[in-house]
Amino acid sequence: MGYKVGIVGATGAVGQEFIKLLSDRNFPVSELKLFASARSAGKQVEALGTTITIEEATETCFDGLDYVLFSANGSLSKALCPAAAKAGAVAIDNSSAFRMDPEVPLVVPEINGEAARAHKGIIANPNCSTAISLMGAAPLHKAFGLKRMFASTYQAVSGSGAEAMKELEDQLKAWSAGEPIEKSVYPHQIAFNALPHVDVFQDNGYTKEEMKLVNESRKIMGLPDLVASCTCVRVPVMRSHSISINAEFERPVSVEEARAAIAEFPGVDLIDEPSSNTYPMPLDFAGRVNCGVGRIRQDIGFDNGLAFWVVGDQLWKGAALNAIQIAEYLIK
Amino acid sequence: MGYKVGIVGATGAVGQEFIKLLSDRNFPVSELKLFASARSAGKQVEALGTTITIEEATETCFDGLDYVLFSANGSLSKALCPAAAKAGAVAIDNSSAFRMDPEVPLVVPEINGEAARAHKGIIANPNCSTAISLMGAAPLHKAFGLKRMFASTYQAVSGSGAEAMKELEDQLKAWSAGEPIEKSVYPHQIAFNALPHVDVFQDNGYTKEEMKLVNESRKIMGLPDLVASCTCVRVPVMRSHSISINAEFERPVSVEEARAAIAEFPGVDLIDEPSSNTYPMPLDFAGRVNCGVGRIRQDIGFDNGLAFWVVGDQLWKGAALNAIQIAEYLIK
Repeated sequence: MGYKVGIVGATGAVGQEFIKLLSDRNFPVSELKLFASARSAGKQVEALGTTITIEEATETCFDGLDYVLFSANGSLSKALCPAAAKAGAVAIDNSSAFRMDPEVPLVVPEINGEAARAHKGIIANPNCSTAISLMGAAPLHKAFGLKRMFASTYQAVSGSGAEAMKELEDQLKAWSAGEPIEKSVYPHQIAFNALPHVDVFQDNGYTKEEMKLVNESRKIMGLPDLVASCTCVRVPVMRSHSISINAEFERPVSVEEARAAIAEFPGVDLIDEPSSNTYPMPLDFAGRVNCGVGRIRQDIGFDNGLAFWVVGDQLWKGAALNAIQIAEYLIK
Repeated sequence: MGYKVGIVGATGAVGQEFIKLLSDRNFPVSELKLFASARSAGKQVEALGTTITIEEATETCFDGLDYVLFSANGSLSKALCPAAAKAGAVAIDNSSAFRMDPEVPLVVPEINGEAARAHKGIIANPNCSTAISLMGAAPLHKAFGLKRMFASTYQAVSGSGAEAMKELEDQLKAWSAGEPIEKSVYPHQIAFNALPHVDVFQDNGYTKEEMKLVNESRKIMGLPDLVASCTCVRVPVMRSHSISINAEFERPVSVEEARAAIAEFPGVDLIDEPSSNTYPMPLDFAGRVNCGVGRIRQDIGFDNGLAFWVVGDQLWKGAALNAIQIAEYLIK
């Protein structure tokens, strides 16, 4: 017994992690179908110990499936998630297309898993830096009542897909060989650099990515009045995002209680021993299920505040893993 | 006619920039003396078109000098700056030894140059991330009255000296060649990583570097009640620091006025055209005299707030250049 699972965007960086995680986590798959654009259709891929031929993702490809994991661009998700839902599957979508739709649950299972049960065929997976930030902020919200947060991100290139990971590699190899550095994914060189620019700019001067943290955090934590402000920055790191957060709370805070709140929350590791230079770092979080929180201290910028540092794998908790955890939550 | 100048720590990363900048800026030097530890004494260095033999820095080496630029560790500065002052020179010190001493001016010439004139033989040069942060914050303070700021830094390895720059290079070359990556300067690999750890940890959970931004900002801007909170992070960038700042002001702000305030302030460039992907980036600021400010927007986390991004060369405005600008201010 098991579930018939489809993956849309199977050839991308997140799609590959979907396949790996379904296997690693022994997700009960009775049949796996892989979809991608017409360009990749016909390609053969090893998955779950067998060879699967990639099919073109179309409105009519979802018949008989139970879960369809989407990692495609927003317009493809917009077109195909309703088709998957109509065919009787639950579509779990990584794009931003449905996240703020009031009819669609936006879920981090450890935080608001119960919201997933109210789905009408589509469930949205949060933005990567939001999901990872909230793995630090939500436990502290539970303990002290979150009022306001300022976040600055240190985002890995994996967030821009497999070509961006290759671009960072290529740039550093070219540098190392004394050859000219080329770029195509990012508007500027990413090696040895920091780009205060993730996603497109909005009229208010924030990027879309920065506003996602504001809006998605409100929806996931059920805090419509949460005040939040974010600056998103791409750094030459391969696949884990880090976020520096200054947070203000309703109730008085203590570092001891904050550490306890993190330690007992599922899906997050307390990594916070400054005396032994122990804190979460992106290099340690590639391919790690849990996120990590450290550098917890009473924030001297607020009366009731905590400053902290969260790290998590962009491809996993920030994308593929969280989507699969949503499916796991539903079949539990 | 000119000034007799000494450099203590002439062989270090900042010392080398002192020599380069004295030449580049045509600082009126009639005689240059280079000092370092006993280990480097006797070594010959090309400087200002001639060959100079490095002498050991001692309490008795400063006779006849007008300005002595120090880039040494705090304990050496503590021992030798008073000796330089006693010998009649003005000691301009890059260490943290004297920065919070009420008898010693702490100076960024564009912000509080006049404070330098009250010196008693020693002038302190600010911490690198503080000096660069304030090149963005001070013009906005002048316009709107700064009340509170949250800063997250993206600090270059140059801040840890020449060996750290070599360590990042060596790690990336080893990675590129498929060889094992070694570390000695930092407790963790810096290539492909982000270390939320600059300087030593204090009892309140902040690092010394993070508290410098709080305390030195208050002193330089003459704002004893300024509320500030900072998280300092080392990133795999070679020599320019970047800082993401969320700032709250006394008076209502506008992005237009903020941009005007930055544009008219000396020593800082407004680099802020999101529509053409134009913002300051560390790669563009190595060897640049001015700091850059961009990503200016109304901060949605405050009633009267601005979010912005500042970048500057750690070795220049964060160290050697600012020290020389202090001397230039005094001889003007």
